Amino acid sequence: MKQAGSSTSAAIHAAAGAADANLAHAALIALDWGTTSLRAYLYDASGNVLATRESTAGIMNLPRSAEQGGFDAAFEDTCGAWLADAPGVPVIAAGMVGSAQGWVEAPYVEAPANADALVAGIVRVKAACGATLHIVPGVLQRGELPNVMRGEETQIFGALGRDANSVDGGTQALIGLPGTHAKWVVVKSRRIERFHTFMTGEVFAALREHTILGRTMTTPDRPDTEAFLRGVTIAREKGRAGVLATAFSARTLGLTGELSGRQQPDYLSGLLIGHELAGLDAILAQQQSALAGQSLRLIGNEALCERYRLALAQFGCTQAELVKHATERGLWRVASQAGLINPAARAAHAG
Amino acid sequence: MKQAGSSTSAAIHAAAGAADANLAHAALIALDWGTTSLRAYLYDASGNVLATRESTAGIMNLPRSAEQGGFDAAFEDTCGAWLADAPGVPVIAAGMVGSAQGWVEAPYVEAPANADALVAGIVRVKAACGATLHIVPGVLQRGELPNVMRGEETQIFGALGRDANSVDGGTQALIGLPGTHAKWVVVKSRRIERFHTFMTGEVFAALREHTILGRTMTTPDRPDTEAFLRGVTIAREKGRAGVLATAFSARTLGLTGELSGRQQPDYLSGLLIGHELAGLDAILAQQQSALAGQSLRLIGNEALCERYRLALAQFGCTQAELVKHATERGLWRVASQAGLINPAARAAHAG
Repeated sequence: MKQAGSSTSAAIHAAAGAADANLAHAALIALDWGTTSLRAYLYDASGNVLATRESTAGIMNLPRSAEQGGFDAAFEDTCGAWLADAPGVPVIAAGMVGSAQGWVEAPYVEAPANADALVAGIVRVKAACGATLHIVPGVLQRGELPNVMRGEETQIFGALGRDANSVDGGTQALIGLPGTHAKWVVVKSRRIERFHTFMTGEVFAALREHTILGRTMTTPDRPDTEAFLRGVTIAREKGRAGVLATAFSARTLGLTGELSGRQQPDYLSGLLIGHELAGLDAILAQQQSALAGQSLRLIGNEALCERYRLALAQFGCTQAELVKHATERGLWRVASQAGLINPAARAAHAG
Repeated sequence: MKQAGSSTSAAIHAAAGAADANLAHAALIALDWGTTSLRAYLYDASGNVLATRESTAGIMNLPRSAEQGGFDAAFEDTCGAWLADAPGVPVIAAGMVGSAQGWVEAPYVEAPANADALVAGIVRVKAACGATLHIVPGVLQRGELPNVMRGEETQIFGALGRDANSVDGGTQALIGLPGTHAKWVVVKSRRIERFHTFMTGEVFAALREHTILGRTMTTPDRPDTEAFLRGVTIAREKGRAGVLATAFSARTLGLTGELSGRQQPDYLSGLLIGHELAGLDAILAQQQSALAGQSLRLIGNEALCERYRLALAQFGCTQAELVKHATERGLWRVASQAGLINPAARAAHAG
């Protein structure tokens, strides 16, 4: 079985298109199937990405209803040509496709969870075209404040592979996944130990579009870093009353002429991300840790991760490394661990 | 001039209607004119409410645009009959009608502010019918997190009158005004010293209607106090990561079968109010104070204030008194202080 941290990782890249790909070498189709989008990757037997497809057919946005075969239609539309050229190629999928609203439910595995636990929780579903999809389960953390993830668990194993040795050594690693529902995940010995969800992205959108705060906002030509950092600093230094209290300042600083309409969106974004990081810091403090001096990794949209890096620096955390291609790496790795990659094909390729 | 705490306060009540009112005794028309509603009160010379009118013609919901005389139309529709029967009666108004989007802007007076400061800040506007409206200004508190209120300042002076002596004695009083934008106001020596705004009500609506949390919620037949208090307790005891983190539990407790769809709205309401009160407690702690053992007053919707009383008790605050009729009392008091009540009419009435 292919080991993490080998040449595979370095070789993975998003190919420009399928046209020139040598599909004779196709060894895996992997789907990152979320709520609003579907991304598909075709790999050769070494884990190189030969081709990618992207569609808006997320599970809440199928071409037709699930009852009318919407999942099959989206799958066929995205991967039909690949399957026609490489019949029998294994298929793996992660994300909301395995939720109760997905194609088939892959019940959560419980944290702490390693890659073996994910593999053991894989649920299969047969597509109309005859292919079998292997659906990776999400992870559930029980407790007074339960937490769930679907899709992120696969990205995390994709990110871990890059420095298998250090993480394998038992050191604790902190990984952030900014976004609609930002996750902060503690990993130890290649195992997802515990994690937290901050609804930062979705709350920002709801505040901007559906509260009084949006009324005075205008869209800036480009991000206003100064306004963003002002928000981060307020949250960090003056945020003890919580975001329900500080959010109103996005409006009142406008009323007092201190923040223009164009600056208000970035200020509010900074406030929310600042409160998220202050909350994370409070959690870390309970574990005799802190963001200051922490070395961590970020997975996600590059521009958003850059905003988080700026904000993290305000908390004394200057070592936040952006991990690229975590999704396609993770899907490949879980498929490998599940034994989905045909050893013969790989041996042939290696030879 | 009528003194606060006299028989006036006890005598004020909302009359059933205008039909039987003896308009010969009309001494004041007062308007509580907000964003989405307009309430009008007609008083006799002793401050008794003779009649009330209520309309949906808030400043964002006028019968026609402001440019086309929308304010005049709403005023005429609500108070025209009263003015016809009692020409020359003085008119006072408080609330968003004095904002930049209102009939005329009454610039904020700065905190600390007493009733004299409000009176000095009154701005007049002449209606098409000939009447002059006296618009009470709002209050602005400058700082890194500026705060503003419009309308609440008048309610606060209405609430103070009830126990003029104790508050006059220099004791600090804490007054809460739950709602869309909840206010917590520190009053000392009949002066608004400082205040805080929590966007609790509006954030609740935005989360429920415009985020994933609403998707699994159903509307309960009646409030679920147990679910509400569960949310309050989580915010108080496990809320250190902040509301951006705890909010997600309204969904995940559903996924784990611990909270039904009908319980989720009250749980989320308890979470948000709990975070508001935890934030307030953190502010008080800076001033060597606390909610525990605090004696405070609440102004606002009775059912909502009752929820706050339940939540406050979780923070050790069992003395939260609901102040009724604060709006109409406050409008009367500011009008009295401004000398708008005709002394002759009052003398005649008193004789």
